[in-house]
Amino acid sequence: MWSESEKKVARRAFDGALKKEYAALMNRLKDLAEKAGTPEDIWAIHDFLTEQRKMIDRKYDYRYSQLVMVFGGLLGEGRITDKELEGLKEEKLDLIRKIASL
Amino acid sequence: MWSESEKKVARRAFDGALKKEYAALMNRLKDLAEKAGTPEDIWAIHDFLTEQRKMIDRKYDYRYSQLVMVFGGLLGEGRITDKELEGLKEEKLDLIRKIASL
Repeated sequence: MWSESEKKVARRAFDGALKKEYAALMNRLKDLAEKAGTPEDIWAIHDFLTEQRKMIDRKYDYRYSQLVMVFGGLLGEGRITDKELEGLKEEKLDLIRKIASL
Repeated sequence: MWSESEKKVARRAFDGALKKEYAALMNRLKDLAEKAGTPEDIWAIHDFLTEQRKMIDRKYDYRYSQLVMVFGGLLGEGRITDKELEGLKEEKLDLIRKIASL
């Protein structure tokens, strides 16, 4: 169960992580496009975007049933910080930290 | 039937058109990537590349059974010129021109 105040924390943390994910992807795309010189480079960018799209769709799953797993993953890879999760119940935080450390 | 000398003409015209196709695509990709500012822009680039890849695969079909059709299409859209087809038998050229004018 997620309280209203927890939902606010979760939404902010989630959106912040997704924003960072997109910023990193944007930088990478611009860099790859700038350096591209051959047809193979074009299709490598296409393949890269196909993968990234699948990855983002899979990773950013905002269902409350999935959110502890999602945050565990994001915390583990440094896309969110402990601080951004402040306001969640201790029980959830414990589980998120455990998943993050896997 | 394609004679050896016709095959040489065909190969050069085909490769030249494909090279121009890729050069145009490269410019467009670099421009789109440079101007991209939102996640939607990233996925629009991905969709664009998906379409272009299908289009190029479909359009550049170097089977001798397809080549008159292929050249007809390329001549019609200005990717190849009459001059580049010089050396093909008059019968083929007639057909290519007819397809180009469709």
